[in-house]
Amino acid sequence: MQAYHTLTARFARLGALGDAAGILHWDRQTLMPTGAADGRAEQLAQLSVIAHEILTASQTGDLIDQAHDERQHLDPWEGANLREMRRAYLHASAVPADLVAASSKASSRSGMIWREARAQSDFGQLAPALAETLRLQRAVGAAKGAALGLDSYDALLDGYDPGMRRATIDPLFADLRATLPGLIEAVRARQASGPAPLPLPSPFPVETQAAIGQRLMQAVGFDMTRGRLDVSLHPFCGGAADDVRITTRYDSDDASRALMGVLHETGHALYEQGLPAAWRHQPVGTARGMTLHESQSLLVEMQACRSFAFCSFLAPVLREAFGGDGPAWTAENLHGLYTRVEPNFIRVDADEVTYPAHILLRYDLETAMIAGDLAVNDLPGAFNDGLRDLLGLTVPDDRQGCLQDIHWPSGSFGYFPTYTLGAMAAAQLFRAACEAAPGILTGLAVGDFTDLRGWLRESVHARASLLETDDLLVAATGRPLSAADFTRHLHHRYLGES
Amino acid sequence: MQAYHTLTARFARLGALGDAAGILHWDRQTLMPTGAADGRAEQLAQLSVIAHEILTASQTGDLIDQAHDERQHLDPWEGANLREMRRAYLHASAVPADLVAASSKASSRSGMIWREARAQSDFGQLAPALAETLRLQRAVGAAKGAALGLDSYDALLDGYDPGMRRATIDPLFADLRATLPGLIEAVRARQASGPAPLPLPSPFPVETQAAIGQRLMQAVGFDMTRGRLDVSLHPFCGGAADDVRITTRYDSDDASRALMGVLHETGHALYEQGLPAAWRHQPVGTARGMTLHESQSLLVEMQACRSFAFCSFLAPVLREAFGGDGPAWTAENLHGLYTRVEPNFIRVDADEVTYPAHILLRYDLETAMIAGDLAVNDLPGAFNDGLRDLLGLTVPDDRQGCLQDIHWPSGSFGYFPTYTLGAMAAAQLFRAACEAAPGILTGLAVGDFTDLRGWLRESVHARASLLETDDLLVAATGRPLSAADFTRHLHHRYLGES
Repeated sequence: MQAYHTLTARFARLGALGDAAGILHWDRQTLMPTGAADGRAEQLAQLSVIAHEILTASQTGDLIDQAHDERQHLDPWEGANLREMRRAYLHASAVPADLVAASSKASSRSGMIWREARAQSDFGQLAPALAETLRLQRAVGAAKGAALGLDSYDALLDGYDPGMRRATIDPLFADLRATLPGLIEAVRARQASGPAPLPLPSPFPVETQAAIGQRLMQAVGFDMTRGRLDVSLHPFCGGAADDVRITTRYDSDDASRALMGVLHETGHALYEQGLPAAWRHQPVGTARGMTLHESQSLLVEMQACRSFAFCSFLAPVLREAFGGDGPAWTAENLHGLYTRVEPNFIRVDADEVTYPAHILLRYDLETAMIAGDLAVNDLPGAFNDGLRDLLGLTVPDDRQGCLQDIHWPSGSFGYFPTYTLGAMAAAQLFRAACEAAPGILTGLAVGDFTDLRGWLRESVHARASLLETDDLLVAATGRPLSAADFTRHLHHRYLGES
Repeated sequence: MQAYHTLTARFARLGALGDAAGILHWDRQTLMPTGAADGRAEQLAQLSVIAHEILTASQTGDLIDQAHDERQHLDPWEGANLREMRRAYLHASAVPADLVAASSKASSRSGMIWREARAQSDFGQLAPALAETLRLQRAVGAAKGAALGLDSYDALLDGYDPGMRRATIDPLFADLRATLPGLIEAVRARQASGPAPLPLPSPFPVETQAAIGQRLMQAVGFDMTRGRLDVSLHPFCGGAADDVRITTRYDSDDASRALMGVLHETGHALYEQGLPAAWRHQPVGTARGMTLHESQSLLVEMQACRSFAFCSFLAPVLREAFGGDGPAWTAENLHGLYTRVEPNFIRVDADEVTYPAHILLRYDLETAMIAGDLAVNDLPGAFNDGLRDLLGLTVPDDRQGCLQDIHWPSGSFGYFPTYTLGAMAAAQLFRAACEAAPGILTGLAVGDFTDLRGWLRESVHARASLLETDDLLVAATGRPLSAADFTRHLHHRYLGES
């Protein structure tokens, strides 16, 4: 047990360093003066290098091997902790230091160029830097793959979503690919056959929006003594253990976007705040990958808060807060607004029915790029062809096409599929929750999340990384990840099928 | 030069870690949710331990010795950098790791208990923990003293103000001790002989105070692209290089306190923002100790902004901003308010004439405590006797006596004298500045700090730690640190002597 205990001290230090970096990242997005950017980059780089040195030290590998030899003395949590320590060690030590530095530098550079290229809708400006980032991410994938016994794409994917594999994703996405175009068509025809929902009359004072956001995030269960709500250009959930910080952005012409954004990030935050304190700063005590993380945000936002039940609670809250009057403020109209389906060029603005099309496209493109089957110069054409095939949209310029997302320029390949895998997991978990706790929907109708939160705490949050993702889903829902409940949910909500 | 260059990389890392900790400290005082306190303490402790490990590694000492052997190749800045590296190394490596841990833990504990003891004005509650903190600080002083060739108090003092010694302080303070009681009496008699200044009529809306604070700090020269102004319970200047964060606290019944506080912290910030970018994160690139740091805040607040010239600029600014009217808003009355002298129990509320008495007292007490000549249990009596002798005040309870400051409970012995040494240096520097740049006072009268800032940048800020404190003062003012200009300033401002 000596080796295992030495490792836990080492990982506790890594956890504290990660928390420090989390607050510094948050500050950069919310409050940092512009002139501090270089200094902050240096602080974060030093923290990252120090953490990498601690993690990849040869003693870490030796200790993991020794602890593995003593594993019969470990209880299930300790065993899972050792499993996750090994995973972290393999990911970090697989990549030679010069490749870490080169890929980090290239991603940082193409991420910076991307901002300018997107503003000018000029893919040619980004292409050389993106090609270099891709080249290095392929090398990272190959190096990690060799250490983990995976192909390059699976190795990159494993960095965001431990245990997730293309062999799992492909059949799930094939289901969607076959049924999605027909579903979108049917939903749009149905929505076109009735009156369009009325827009809520603006303006919506920012202070009022912020007050409603705070009230709702607390209703969902956010602990304000262990977190904050602030403003940033791109909403996110970050911070540290016991200091979970979510952000949103307010638009005085549109109250729904900030509100739904707050609820989405609250779903992420609830997961972080619900992780077991006893395993704070240990690998087993962290959230279980991006599919489950996204499942928690989408469960709160899409499954719970866009339900008719919750809209019937929310409509009078909004009407009173904004001093509204008239037919736009009914629960029916609000629900119509929150479930409107409309193909859109921009992924982050997409409704939950068309959203998976954006992911199917990006998954195809990034697996091809990592495999070496798609060159960066051919990306705009392939992207535009794909969006036309999947959503019937003709991309007018690259800003609304392959330049819209920061993921690839910043070196993130293997991240996109977790959004839609998360939507599937959200539907599956929400269904299981409602079956296990029939009071959930009646609770939502009065803004009471107690039953839902209780089920999520026990079934998902408190388990942290004890179980692999599919094992957790089996334990919580009786089945591994499937597209069935998501498809069923869409048919139910958007086509009125029971 | 190889050893020297290796050292600069090592200290660059330490500088970045220090900056990261600076932002985390700032966040703790301004925004952090209460439940995050333990986690934040852990993050800061880990950063501190990592920095200590890097600094005290045996290679650091070896590299310093090697670089010392090659010192003929170093230019003056590099040579001074090596001198400061050695000072940092000696301070850090002098104290055994178990004593570092024990003293840090004891100080942390007595600092916590102090909050409660002060609130209840119960010295007995603090005494055992304070005694333990004192015992360990005496051990730290002895260990550092052995490494640095100093007595214990000088060794602790050197940690806050490199190169400062009791042998320098004692004659300076003896001058003050001899003349201060008579001066205070004369000033009070003179002020009592005329009408008291009229208080500005409250309330003062917080938003207006904040807007004036922002306007004035920018007038002084604060670069808002490399810093911020926020709110905290105890005002301070912190943050990081290129990210200097000052705080204040607003009281809608009193506009002067926040305003003068902002100007005080702006003086600190101007120093930090004026340090040479080329030496960022190197020991020679940091501010030169607490005496000079305090000189910069007091120069801006006391010398410049409480001058009649600046009051003649400020009075109409305040009158317009607060919509004031009548005789309270004249420059003469404002200057009367800002230079009112009144003995007060509380150090941080003291005017610049009586302030040194608070420091003389604390200096006597803390040198006696470190020497072992004053026991913690005898502190309240000694404190109260001293305040009666120096200011003629009878302390009604320990909250307004020896419990008022956090310094000793938090383990800071050797810090107090730098406040009054800073006041002396401020007077000396301001006089030299006005002689070198005669436009300074006419500038202040129209809110233009260009000439003053230019002189400070060149004479103090840009020199960072190139020179030892007294050498810097000689270079900037022609003389080492003296009480003469401070005494002259008090006689001039408060007794009308030319």
